[in-house]
Amino acid sequence: MLQQRSSRRHFSAKHLATNAFRELAAGLAEAGRAFYARGWVLGTSGNFSAIVAREPLRLAITSSGVDKGALTATQFLEIDENLNILGGSGAPSAEALLHLALVRARGAGAVLHTHSVWSTILSESFAGQGGLAISGYEMLKGLASVASHKHREWLPILENSQDMPELARQLEAILQRYPGSHGFLLRGHGLYTWGENLSEARRHVEILEFLLEVVGRTCGSARGHAAAV
Amino acid sequence: MLQQRSSRRHFSAKHLATNAFRELAAGLAEAGRAFYARGWVLGTSGNFSAIVAREPLRLAITSSGVDKGALTATQFLEIDENLNILGGSGAPSAEALLHLALVRARGAGAVLHTHSVWSTILSESFAGQGGLAISGYEMLKGLASVASHKHREWLPILENSQDMPELARQLEAILQRYPGSHGFLLRGHGLYTWGENLSEARRHVEILEFLLEVVGRTCGSARGHAAAV
Amino acid sequence: MLQQRSSRRHFSAKHLATNAFRELAAGLAEAGRAFYARGWVLGTSGNFSAIVAREPLRLAITSSGVDKGALTATQFLEIDENLNILGGSGAPSAEALLHLALVRARGAGAVLHTHSVWSTILSESFAGQGGLAISGYEMLKGLASVASHKHREWLPILENSQDMPELARQLEAILQRYPGSHGFLLRGHGLYTWGENLSEARRHVEILEFLLEVVGRTCGSARGHAAAV
Amino acid sequence: MLQQRSSRRHFSAKHLATNAFRELAAGLAEAGRAFYARGWVLGTSGNFSAIVAREPLRLAITSSGVDKGALTATQFLEIDENLNILGGSGAPSAEALLHLALVRARGAGAVLHTHSVWSTILSESFAGQGGLAISGYEMLKGLASVASHKHREWLPILENSQDMPELARQLEAILQRYPGSHGFLLRGHGLYTWGENLSEARRHVEILEFLLEVVGRTCGSARGHAAAV
Repeated sequence: MLQQRSSRRHFSAKHLATNAFRELAAGLAEAGRAFYARGWVLGTSGNFSAIVAREPLRLAITSSGVDKGALTATQFLEIDENLNILGGSGAPSAEALLHLALVRARGAGAVLHTHSVWSTILSESFAGQGGLAISGYEMLKGLASVASHKHREWLPILENSQDMPELARQLEAILQRYPGSHGFLLRGHGLYTWGENLSEARRHVEILEFLLEVVGRTCGSARGHAAAV
Repeated sequence: MLQQRSSRRHFSAKHLATNAFRELAAGLAEAGRAFYARGWVLGTSGNFSAIVAREPLRLAITSSGVDKGALTATQFLEIDENLNILGGSGAPSAEALLHLALVRARGAGAVLHTHSVWSTILSESFAGQGGLAISGYEMLKGLASVASHKHREWLPILENSQDMPELARQLEAILQRYPGSHGFLLRGHGLYTWGENLSEARRHVEILEFLLEVVGRTCGSARGHAAAV
Repeated sequence: MLQQRSSRRHFSAKHLATNAFRELAAGLAEAGRAFYARGWVLGTSGNFSAIVAREPLRLAITSSGVDKGALTATQFLEIDENLNILGGSGAPSAEALLHLALVRARGAGAVLHTHSVWSTILSESFAGQGGLAISGYEMLKGLASVASHKHREWLPILENSQDMPELARQLEAILQRYPGSHGFLLRGHGLYTWGENLSEARRHVEILEFLLEVVGRTCGSARGHAAAV
Repeated sequence: MLQQRSSRRHFSAKHLATNAFRELAAGLAEAGRAFYARGWVLGTSGNFSAIVAREPLRLAITSSGVDKGALTATQFLEIDENLNILGGSGAPSAEALLHLALVRARGAGAVLHTHSVWSTILSESFAGQGGLAISGYEMLKGLASVASHKHREWLPILENSQDMPELARQLEAILQRYPGSHGFLLRGHGLYTWGENLSEARRHVEILEFLLEVVGRTCGSARGHAAAV
């Protein structure tokens, strides 16, 4: 009897985890299709993840190489902290290591990576300074824990690399050095941001993409409130 | 009998007000979703209001911090002129004081606040002059009471602030100083405009956002018809 | 009997004209909603017309001041060549005189007026030269009777005016002077183009708006193939 | 009996080819409508093809002059390598010769031609150098067989011409000279790219259009990673 109960409890926990996975995958898929409509994840670029369970860690993440304009919940897989596949279909994105680093370092519940024209352009033009600071815009108040437009948001820029374990180590160092940053840019590659849940992470994408467009279109003039260090 | 009638009349008036609130909230929600699609209210930015009744004042206004891309009539609340909540769900936006100031000073039936890339950029680049004048464009004729493209529209720019009572006082002074203005910019924050009803206010948003984009894209060249005083 | 037949024939011709009006209005409304989605007729700007019958002239044209994002066939009216209203609801646009001038001078079956950001900007920056020439683009081949990208399209620019009879006279002179032009710009006001039917006129809008955007975005650099005379 | 079987087999093969044609045409039509929504094939510009069978060659290709915003599978025709029409309605685009050249030289399963603002602008500004090189962007990794953002993609630019047989010969020479290129530009005319199937070709369109927009918007500044040889 005891064994039976235990098994039942196990099944039930797994069942709940599966439902959580499906719901998170559906929410991430909807966000991905909306980003695609705005031109932020063209050409199968971008990847999205959310925490299914923390102990032990289970992460729902997009399969590699799928078209984000037609993204569905079935194109996600569930991985553990060692990139083992627990469920779902396809292979995890090579960038899953970055997602895991963000989940560990920031306690993020969701991580979103977009690949817009403006984030790409600014990640190049500010690369020499290692990042760009954005300040003075009301939109900054939509970032978690920010209470005034006078907030100075530092978006670090990392050199792009195909060596993901090395990139993940560099990211960990950057996250420690700038504990207040709400996102970062990979050079020539795009934006990463996160939130305690999908809704907050999605809001952060919209806010940072908006601000990057403002900074990008201001270029040529006095560059407004964006500045390197 | 008399008492009964009075009570019935009261109920009936309240009932009508509730229906008016619902219809206005539905209209504002539809406008908000359309603005979101154009990228004018990303990241939960923007807020919208309309008059339910004038004596005593009852205002339908967006709850604070809601996603405008999925805005529904249930995300509005009804407030009086002292920010008391009369109905609906959520908390009123901190900027409700600005809406109330506009309703009082201009007799506006609807007030719309958008937060676009171009209004943000121009609110910075013209901040030193206290505003920008737009003239010579046929689109100006869509503003209430404007009969010719030769009209000169002055859009005052207010310094942004998190002190809303103080900002509301400054706004009142600006509205008195420029009685002909159809809108104003908050620096680094976006556009406010209004109209005698939602339809007119929405037309004013489209017209002013269009003109700001024209002025912004003309920058670098001779700046066309936009000029500081 | 004769009278009865005649009356029947008359009824039948009127009936056919009514059906033609409805179909044309529905087609124009669909075009208007599509232009609105692209931001080419914001703020109730723009107006559209099509020929219902030539002898005597009957023109279906948008009512003045309607929102093009929700345009329906019921927001059109039917006018004769003297601006008399034959049917439908609302008042004809003040610019109906320009539509009638184009129908007469070019034999156009449909006339479309859009009001985009780029047509507005270029109508200002090239106003001093009286127009702009566009040449060297493959897209030009989509204009009626154009067989090569080497075609030189001259888009005259007329000074804007609120005196419509006077503007119509100036337009007639311009149309005579440049018999090969497929459209023209009103300064600070937007684009007019036409076609032998709605399908051709709509194609001309897309082509000219595309080319104006190309020219506008090329500004700052060598201005590509666009030049003033 | 033998004859009957043969005839049945023939019928069956033809039947399969017809089904393949219909499915490919439906997929191409869907891609075309999506490109139209992004403004990449306005004014009936653009054309699309896919291989129905290789031996002997049968190609599904858009009819000439159709509106891509309402493109349906019925607006495609099937041609052989000599431009003979095997089925479907309309006339093949004059540019079918370029599609056939790409199918032969690259073994492409699908060929897509878009006509965007940025490809048009860059095809002019880099025409003097015969092409543009794009390098350093992560988005390049979405191109077939590209493994690093350090990849250098050379997009040749061909002078536009209305002499299609001559243009096809020049294209063949260019394709031989640059065996690694994933696309090319026709000057003042737009982008051609291809893939082993429609899905890959469509991904290539999104990637190259994205990169051209990045390069185009970077112009004025240091031009980022785009350079003429």
